[in-house]
Amino acid sequence: MGKLVCVGLGPGDPDLMSVRAHRLVGAARHVAYFRKKGRMGQARRIVEGLLPDGVTEYPMDYPVTVEIPFTDPEYNRLLSEFYDDWAERLAMLCQGQDVIVLCEGDPFFYGSFMHLYTRLKDRIPVEVVPGITGMSGCWTATGAPITWGDDVLTVAMATLPEADLAARIAQTDALVVMKIGRNLPKLTRALQSAGKFGDAWIVTHGTMDNQTVRRLDEVTGEVPYFSIVVVHGQGRRP
Amino acid sequence: MGKLVCVGLGPGDPDLMSVRAHRLVGAARHVAYFRKKGRMGQARRIVEGLLPDGVTEYPMDYPVTVEIPFTDPEYNRLLSEFYDDWAERLAMLCQGQDVIVLCEGDPFFYGSFMHLYTRLKDRIPVEVVPGITGMSGCWTATGAPITWGDDVLTVAMATLPEADLAARIAQTDALVVMKIGRNLPKLTRALQSAGKFGDAWIVTHGTMDNQTVRRLDEVTGEVPYFSIVVVHGQGRRP
Repeated sequence: MGKLVCVGLGPGDPDLMSVRAHRLVGAARHVAYFRKKGRMGQARRIVEGLLPDGVTEYPMDYPVTVEIPFTDPEYNRLLSEFYDDWAERLAMLCQGQDVIVLCEGDPFFYGSFMHLYTRLKDRIPVEVVPGITGMSGCWTATGAPITWGDDVLTVAMATLPEADLAARIAQTDALVVMKIGRNLPKLTRALQSAGKFGDAWIVTHGTMDNQTVRRLDEVTGEVPYFSIVVVHGQGRRP
Repeated sequence: MGKLVCVGLGPGDPDLMSVRAHRLVGAARHVAYFRKKGRMGQARRIVEGLLPDGVTEYPMDYPVTVEIPFTDPEYNRLLSEFYDDWAERLAMLCQGQDVIVLCEGDPFFYGSFMHLYTRLKDRIPVEVVPGITGMSGCWTATGAPITWGDDVLTVAMATLPEADLAARIAQTDALVVMKIGRNLPKLTRALQSAGKFGDAWIVTHGTMDNQTVRRLDEVTGEVPYFSIVVVHGQGRRP
């Protein structure tokens, strides 16, 4: 009986994966990873050049990403079936050997792996290796600390309703917003209504070669879904 | 002219520092780190056995930690003087060589290094290497994901007033509370008034050999200041 090990790979720069992640990836025989169909996938991209010869790869192509609103029951049905199916396949694979699941960021922080984890944790041995979150990579890229002293940090998704976003933004000291993409106009209005738009930064492709760091009020046009917006806290600083 | 490099060492297990951090620590000639006077210090402990022969160490002993309330002007004065002094000494040291500052967790996330960073960033070259946060190590240790779907995560310090804590806890989906120690009774009351006490977990020494993971309602007695309390989100799960 093998085990399933989900390895958090960090924010994007392969040099920022943990020593343990690096060792597990370099010795892997079977690796699975999520990706949007037709794309390489962020997790797979991070380990490019690090997988040993002869490794078997299992790309797990999402049946849907943003084509159907997640409020549509069909979205849930398709994803539920997808996770059920892959949980079954990974459980079978683990009968004979260890299997590594590659995940960008930190697996237990908004990661897709948790849907496999809940299905498998009572059936087979499952381990999770934490990673540096995408948000840590992004706030470090801004060159300014995110939280000081007793600052409250709120992490919210730009998929939330505009009024909810505005209320959350108004109440917090420091802010991280994820899942941006087409939600940027809504997020912009929420930041404006909370009086924080001028303090917001946006990082795309954090810690990677094509990283960009801009004040949000200087952005024109579209931004990637996996961009991260931050507003730095202003707490106690002796 | 050398540079100052602050290296995030992650939550405690040396195997969870990044590949870059591991390389920088292993090649260091001069390392500085914060500690409570008379203690080894968490950052220094993480790199035990990894520093090369002949390295010069600069322990930076806090003049005060919890002996004076941080609302006392004297607290601020002592710490301000301490950071001014060390900023000066590190700037001098960096004239001739690179200096590594060791920091547990992620330096820009509630880390003491930020007070040196603000004093030095416009004087000498300063780099920051992000790390796995203590909270990532702790929620992974609980064996359950912290955030799902569109969950809002709030990170708050137990040093906040009780009413503030209770309000924050009542409003969020997922919760992380840091700086526990003697604030535990206050945090307990705040969690109870928000109806979340029964859902809270506490992790001490996360990812280290002496790690403990308990439901908060099973804790009796004192807990370390650097314990972390988590309440897991319950968001969308297909």
